[in-house]
Amino acid sequence: MSVTKIALVGIGKIARDQHVPTIAASDRFELVAAVTGHQPPEGIPGYRTIAEMVQAHPEVQAVSICTPPRGRMQVIAEALSHNLDVMIEKPPAATISEAETFAGMARDAGRVFYATWHSREAAAVEPAKQWLDGKTIRRVEVNWKEDVRVWHPGQAWIWEPGIGVFDPGINALSVLTHILPLPMMLQSAELRFPSNRDAPIAADLDYTHGDAPVRVEFDFDQRGPQTWDIVIETDAGHLKLSEGASKMAVDGEAVAVDDDPEYARLYRHFAKLLDARQSDADLSPFRHVADAYLLGRRREVGPFEE
Amino acid sequence: MSVTKIALVGIGKIARDQHVPTIAASDRFELVAAVTGHQPPEGIPGYRTIAEMVQAHPEVQAVSICTPPRGRMQVIAEALSHNLDVMIEKPPAATISEAETFAGMARDAGRVFYATWHSREAAAVEPAKQWLDGKTIRRVEVNWKEDVRVWHPGQAWIWEPGIGVFDPGINALSVLTHILPLPMMLQSAELRFPSNRDAPIAADLDYTHGDAPVRVEFDFDQRGPQTWDIVIETDAGHLKLSEGASKMAVDGEAVAVDDDPEYARLYRHFAKLLDARQSDADLSPFRHVADAYLLGRRREVGPFEE
Repeated sequence: MSVTKIALVGIGKIARDQHVPTIAASDRFELVAAVTGHQPPEGIPGYRTIAEMVQAHPEVQAVSICTPPRGRMQVIAEALSHNLDVMIEKPPAATISEAETFAGMARDAGRVFYATWHSREAAAVEPAKQWLDGKTIRRVEVNWKEDVRVWHPGQAWIWEPGIGVFDPGINALSVLTHILPLPMMLQSAELRFPSNRDAPIAADLDYTHGDAPVRVEFDFDQRGPQTWDIVIETDAGHLKLSEGASKMAVDGEAVAVDDDPEYARLYRHFAKLLDARQSDADLSPFRHVADAYLLGRRREVGPFEE
Repeated sequence: MSVTKIALVGIGKIARDQHVPTIAASDRFELVAAVTGHQPPEGIPGYRTIAEMVQAHPEVQAVSICTPPRGRMQVIAEALSHNLDVMIEKPPAATISEAETFAGMARDAGRVFYATWHSREAAAVEPAKQWLDGKTIRRVEVNWKEDVRVWHPGQAWIWEPGIGVFDPGINALSVLTHILPLPMMLQSAELRFPSNRDAPIAADLDYTHGDAPVRVEFDFDQRGPQTWDIVIETDAGHLKLSEGASKMAVDGEAVAVDDDPEYARLYRHFAKLLDARQSDADLSPFRHVADAYLLGRRREVGPFEE
């Protein structure tokens, strides 16, 4: 097996919590450098720019980009100009227009581009997709409710316009768009904006999937037990995905799925793309977020205090 | 020359003001029927559904869809199921996810699909594009300001979420995305919502085009003279498009352009697509609208009263 020398760009919470340990545990990737304005991971040399990093480490073949969505376009362009293959943390970009250009930029540069959706790698996602195959979907219900204070402590970028509760919400959308056989179409939405923030703290979304209704509720202000559940009623049974699609039950009976971590699978998928010199850039979850902002009625709620 | 028998779907202001007289004046199309819940154009038989229309007029080969953007997907699916070629009035759909499916639906059905942008057919658009060729763009400024009371009297759909001032604004975006050599990328936006409406009455949008700034101002509350101007400063002169890109001046000097009406050109383009059995479905103006909703900070302004 060849080993791909990789650099991380953007060392924030997700890089430290997931990318660094996942790459360390992988025998397919070797973390060689970090590009960051802050502290690099322990034992890894840090550089301010991709250009500086590449000059010091010409052996680096790929970058994994974990910066916030704003400014991704310049980062990706710089990586491609140095002939690096690219994977990016979700969400792919700040705007649809930007995100739509990435795959073409990579193709023009002859590089592999991977727009990741880590929740699609949750353990029950593929088993759920297989179970749904050939069944008729009658109703879908999603409850994706977590406490932003726990998961994004003190992070300012989460309240930038276009983010908010759609940061976790896009994970649910990435699972739905992967496992449902038809495209979902948004019919109406309500977005609830705290009076002191530029992004919604909660959203209710009503889609259709063929003739079946899909009800999606996102909440970023969930104290107590956290909920990342998807329930799908079909003509031949009732599927429940819970704990972010890491667990699965059919008609109330737990179904055994493996417990492979999401990010390990994500990097294995990137390795496959590198081996095949193929890109993977499905933007449908991000389009659904844009649709929610486009079609959503806005309601102001009380201020959010961390 | 063959004559294409066509039906209009949705008989509102734009159908009566533009589509009916344009088709009447064309020797390439013949208006055979209308599909509407209201009054059909004078002398044209009206039907409630595409299915009823096709049953009465099996000779109809194409439909031109002028219904509001909500519900387009069902209308297009029904038209394609009856083997009709399709052109649609802008904006293409209520959501990006819907709009992204149309071209594929038409391709699967073996039909021609044309997502129109009438302002791209304004007389000065192609001359402006040619004049810009090879020049370096330094700055772009757009002022697209009109009185909604005049142009959309009593129309409720214009205040649906996702529409508002972007109904005229998307015309400017359709011209910009056609004449500018690079993609524009939204950097920040402010959307001003009347306190009693679900869509913005004004928007300020700041884009980049390469290194050049693009400032776009939309206003739907413009009393007195109406303004549909685009100014482009280049390294080799100053271009001004006015009156919705029907007029053009370079360095202050008027440049003669023909005075072919937009909708006559639009239907001629549809005829060319039909002859070539090709589709034309550029969604970039609509993506820019979604981006504005995604990235725009919202400000509430006073109520809108017609």
